[in-house]
Amino acid sequence: MAQPAYLTGDAPAINAFIDRFDVFLFDCDGVLWSGDHVFEGVVQTLELLRSRGKKTIFVTNNSTKSRQEYLKKFADMGIPSDVEEIFGSAYSSAIYISRILKLAPPKNKVFVVGEVGIEKELRSEGVSFIGGTDPSFRREMTPEDWKGIADGSLLDPGVGCVLTGLDFHINYLKLSHAHQYLRRGAKFLATNVDSTFPMNHNFFPGAGSISISLTNMTGQKPVALGKPSQAMMDAIEGKFQLDRARTCMVGDRLDTDIQFGVQGKLGGTLAVLTGVSKAADWEAKDAAAVPAYYVDKLSDLLAAAK
Amino acid sequence: MAQPAYLTGDAPAINAFIDRFDVFLFDCDGVLWSGDHVFEGVVQTLELLRSRGKKTIFVTNNSTKSRQEYLKKFADMGIPSDVEEIFGSAYSSAIYISRILKLAPPKNKVFVVGEVGIEKELRSEGVSFIGGTDPSFRREMTPEDWKGIADGSLLDPGVGCVLTGLDFHINYLKLSHAHQYLRRGAKFLATNVDSTFPMNHNFFPGAGSISISLTNMTGQKPVALGKPSQAMMDAIEGKFQLDRARTCMVGDRLDTDIQFGVQGKLGGTLAVLTGVSKAADWEAKDAAAVPAYYVDKLSDLLAAAK
Repeated sequence: MAQPAYLTGDAPAINAFIDRFDVFLFDCDGVLWSGDHVFEGVVQTLELLRSRGKKTIFVTNNSTKSRQEYLKKFADMGIPSDVEEIFGSAYSSAIYISRILKLAPPKNKVFVVGEVGIEKELRSEGVSFIGGTDPSFRREMTPEDWKGIADGSLLDPGVGCVLTGLDFHINYLKLSHAHQYLRRGAKFLATNVDSTFPMNHNFFPGAGSISISLTNMTGQKPVALGKPSQAMMDAIEGKFQLDRARTCMVGDRLDTDIQFGVQGKLGGTLAVLTGVSKAADWEAKDAAAVPAYYVDKLSDLLAAAK
Repeated sequence: MAQPAYLTGDAPAINAFIDRFDVFLFDCDGVLWSGDHVFEGVVQTLELLRSRGKKTIFVTNNSTKSRQEYLKKFADMGIPSDVEEIFGSAYSSAIYISRILKLAPPKNKVFVVGEVGIEKELRSEGVSFIGGTDPSFRREMTPEDWKGIADGSLLDPGVGCVLTGLDFHINYLKLSHAHQYLRRGAKFLATNVDSTFPMNHNFFPGAGSISISLTNMTGQKPVALGKPSQAMMDAIEGKFQLDRARTCMVGDRLDTDIQFGVQGKLGGTLAVLTGVSKAADWEAKDAAAVPAYYVDKLSDLLAAAK
C-alpha cells in the first residue's frame, strides 16, 4: 500500500494539506491529550485551523460521558470548544435509535448496560429506557431474579432494544437481563466495541468486553455506533452536512480512527504518533489501515503559521 | 458419519451395551435431573449398573459447587453417591494447577474469578489464591483502584495464574485485576467455557461469558478444564486409572458431553434425549459429534433388568 506523507517540519506541505480540507474530525485521547495531560500546542493548533475557517469536530468512542460532560472536560483542560462540536458514541447511539431505528410502541424501550452518558443522550433524543444507572440493577441476584428472569415475569415487555456501552458497574443481574431481552428478539446495539479502555497510562476493560459476552451467549453481533463503524460516520455526515472529500480524520489508532476515515472515503486521514499506533504499524503487511499523512504530534501543524 | 444405535426398548442390545463397559461417566443436568426435578427411574438405573459391578462417575462443568456441595445435592435428590464419584470442573482445575502446572514461588498464587466451589477445591489441593468470594473484591472501583491497578501497586506480585469460572458476583474491579495479571504474564485457566448456564428451564450467562471478555482484552485463550476439554479427561483418567476402551460417556449435549467422549477416544458414548440435544442435531451435516448409542431417557436402560 502507498505509504503516508510525513508533514512534520515541512511548512509548504502543511499549508497545502490544510487547504485541502474544510472539516477536521479529531479523536481526543492520544491526539489532544493523554489522560489529564493536554499536549503542548494543541490549543494553538485548533485556533490556527479555526482562524482559517475550518470546522473542528471531536469524535470520541467513550460513552460514559454525555456531550455536556465532555464539554466540561474540554473546559477543564483549557481547550475552547462548543457542545455542537462534540460527537460521542452515546450521542451517536441515541440518534441512531431515534432517527434510524425509530422503535415503535409497544416495543420502544431500550435496556441500557452503561453509564450516565448514555442515559443523558437518550433523554435528549426522547428515547425511553430502563437499566443504566438505576440502583435497582446494582445488586446481587436473588432467588426471585432467577425465577422472574427465566419465566419473563420480571422482564419489561416494552423493551425492543439492548444498548451496551462501557459500564463500570457491570454485574450478573444486568448481563442476565440483557441476555434474556436478546433471546426474546430485542435489537442489539453497542455504543462501541473497543476491547480496552485507556486510563492512567494503562488499559482497563472496554465497552467491547461487555458486548462480547452477550455475543458469546446469543450468537448475535451488535450494531456498533462508535469508530470505526460507518454508522457513526453516517450520523456525523447527517448532522454536519459535511463534504466527505473535503474532510480529514485525525487520530492515533489505525484500527479505529484511521480505518474510520479510510472506510468512510474521507478526503484524507492524518495520523499522530502521540498515542497508540507507531509508524511501524502501518508499514506492517497486515496494517489495519494506512493514513494519507502523518506528523509526530498535532502541534507540528503550527509550522504552517510561520 | 455413522448414526448411533437406538437402544430404547431393545433389552438384548442394552445388555450387550452394558457388558461392553466397566466405567460410566455421567453428565448430571439433563441426564439425571433437570433443575430440582430428578428424572423417574434414575436411582434404579444407577443401582442396576452398580449391581453389575460398574463404576459410576459424575462429571460436571459447574464450578460454583465443590464436590462436597455436589454430594449434598445428590443426597437432597435422593441419589446415593460418594464424594469420590464426583468430578467437577473446580476440582479438575485445582488438580491441574497443583499436579501439572505446579506453580512455584514467588509466582504461586491464583487470582480467582468465581464462587466458593473453586476456593474449596483449591484449598483441598493446597493451592494459594486471592480474589474469589473475598468481600474486598465485591465493590465499586475507587480512584485508588484506577491508579493502583494501572501502576501495579495494588496488584499481588505473587499471582502467577488467573482462573475464571462462573461468578455470580462478577464486576469491573475483578475484571480489571484479572486483565492486568494476564497482561503481566499470568497463565490463563478457565474451569469451563460454557457460554450459558442452564437454570429454571432457561439460560443465564455461563463461565465462558467471563473468560471471553478477558480473551477479547488480551488476545489470550484460557486452558479450559471442563468438558469437552481433554485436560479434564486426562485428570479423570489419572485419578480413576480407568481403561478408556471400557469407559462410556453419558450425556445430553453433543458439543460438550458427546464430543468429550469421542475426542477422548472412549469405548463408547450414550446420548439421552432429556436435555439440550435432539436426534436432529447429530443427523445434521455440521454435528459437533455423533454418539455411538442413544436412548430416549436414561431409565430406558432398566429394560436390561427384565
